[in-house]
Amino acid sequence: SLNVKDLNGKHVFITGCDSGFGNLLAKQLDRRGFHVIAACLTEKGSRELLACTSLSLKTVILNVTDSSSIDNAVEFVKQETDGEGLFGLVNNAGRATPMAPTDWMQIDDFHTILDVNLMGLIEITLKLLPLLKKAKGRVVNVASVMGRLAFVGGGYCLSKWGVEAFSDILRRDMQHFGVKVSIIEPGCFKTGVTSSEVLERDLLRLWNQLTPEVRESYGDKYFYNSLVGVKGLVSWCTY
Amino acid sequence: SLNVKDLNGKHVFITGCDSGFGNLLAKQLDRRGFHVIAACLTEKGSRELLACTSLSLKTVILNVTDSSSIDNAVEFVKQETDGEGLFGLVNNAGRATPMAPTDWMQIDDFHTILDVNLMGLIEITLKLLPLLKKAKGRVVNVASVMGRLAFVGGGYCLSKWGVEAFSDILRRDMQHFGVKVSIIEPGCFKTGVTSSEVLERDLLRLWNQLTPEVRESYGDKYFYNSLVGVKGLVSWCTY
Repeated sequence: SLNVKDLNGKHVFITGCDSGFGNLLAKQLDRRGFHVIAACLTEKGSRELLACTSLSLKTVILNVTDSSSIDNAVEFVKQETDGEGLFGLVNNAGRATPMAPTDWMQIDDFHTILDVNLMGLIEITLKLLPLLKKAKGRVVNVASVMGRLAFVGGGYCLSKWGVEAFSDILRRDMQHFGVKVSIIEPGCFKTGVTSSEVLERDLLRLWNQLTPEVRESYGDKYFYNSLVGVKGLVSWCTY
Repeated sequence: SLNVKDLNGKHVFITGCDSGFGNLLAKQLDRRGFHVIAACLTEKGSRELLACTSLSLKTVILNVTDSSSIDNAVEFVKQETDGEGLFGLVNNAGRATPMAPTDWMQIDDFHTILDVNLMGLIEITLKLLPLLKKAKGRVVNVASVMGRLAFVGGGYCLSKWGVEAFSDILRRDMQHFGVKVSIIEPGCFKTGVTSSEVLERDLLRLWNQLTPEVRESYGDKYFYNSLVGVKGLVSWCTY
């Protein structure tokens, strides 16, 4: 069996626990007896998670684009694990927008995604390596099917390709120390990342900021078809 | 024949022309009659290139990690092409260090490479798209064999994986407008990027900044073997 034995006292740190996969995983591992340390972006997310989990689950507020917020969370994990090291790190925090034709993007639209999905994931991981090595723990990085294929404009695919490369290198670099590294490549699931409302609102924002020349070169029909396309894609996602 | 006909008046903008591939390409395209606009990082690089090329080759100083430097270069290209648009953009500028086990890295070591090889390349490309669309031009991005495999720690592989994903998306997004997008995936060639001296000096810098615990967990022998490995890798590169 692939089940982990002797869960008591094993600490797992999960990022992005406000909703979606991270939230579900935090609840599930808490029920199974792990000591879950759940990083949430918002106080609201933290409160709601604490309200429906055991007393052993702890939360910490974490914005992965802010180095001092990361340092604070790492210090919290250090104190919670109290010399035992970290059994598991699940890098789940991520965002999907902006997602649109490359032509509609500015460089900051790429930074917005890469700072969370790639640089944030790397910084958290680097700073938790000493605790992971101590416990001969494991890292699970949430990549995506879009870490293998590149089919929507913007930083999302790039960030996930980067996660795949980083994870593969980390896996080899950590093997000697007994730290395992895995990736998960979800397809299309209904989470906050695939919210039709968020994707459509962001498409509209990008469309409105285009120069008249670029907007005309695509045309209104293209824009409306994009909205229809997003709805179609999202409706195809599974729960 | 795959040769381009009627080269006269065709403008090609190449980044990273101080040395290596960019320098060789600028000279070769100049000899063939293209109007080359060669972006150099340094005044020295620019002077040396101008000294051995025709009067039609122009240089511009460009640091791809600096948005205002990019804006300046884009304005220069706009004026040089004078309403004709840009026939070709070759995104060649890049760096390879720091390159070492993940454990030896800090987050800034990743930023150092990604800012040049990925974000710089994207920002240049986005800002030149209007001129490229005007001329139904082409983009050639210098990726790497390490854009397909991930085998050295640090940001290099990640940056090249990102270039592969970005290029593939851009290729599809630009097809309608007649702009072609290609990548080049060099193996190991002797250029500034594979300078044994630079790679070794940087390994030493990283080694010296490790905590005593991490340094001991690798051991002096590992470090010396890394230096030998770098020499071996570089000696295997071709001219």
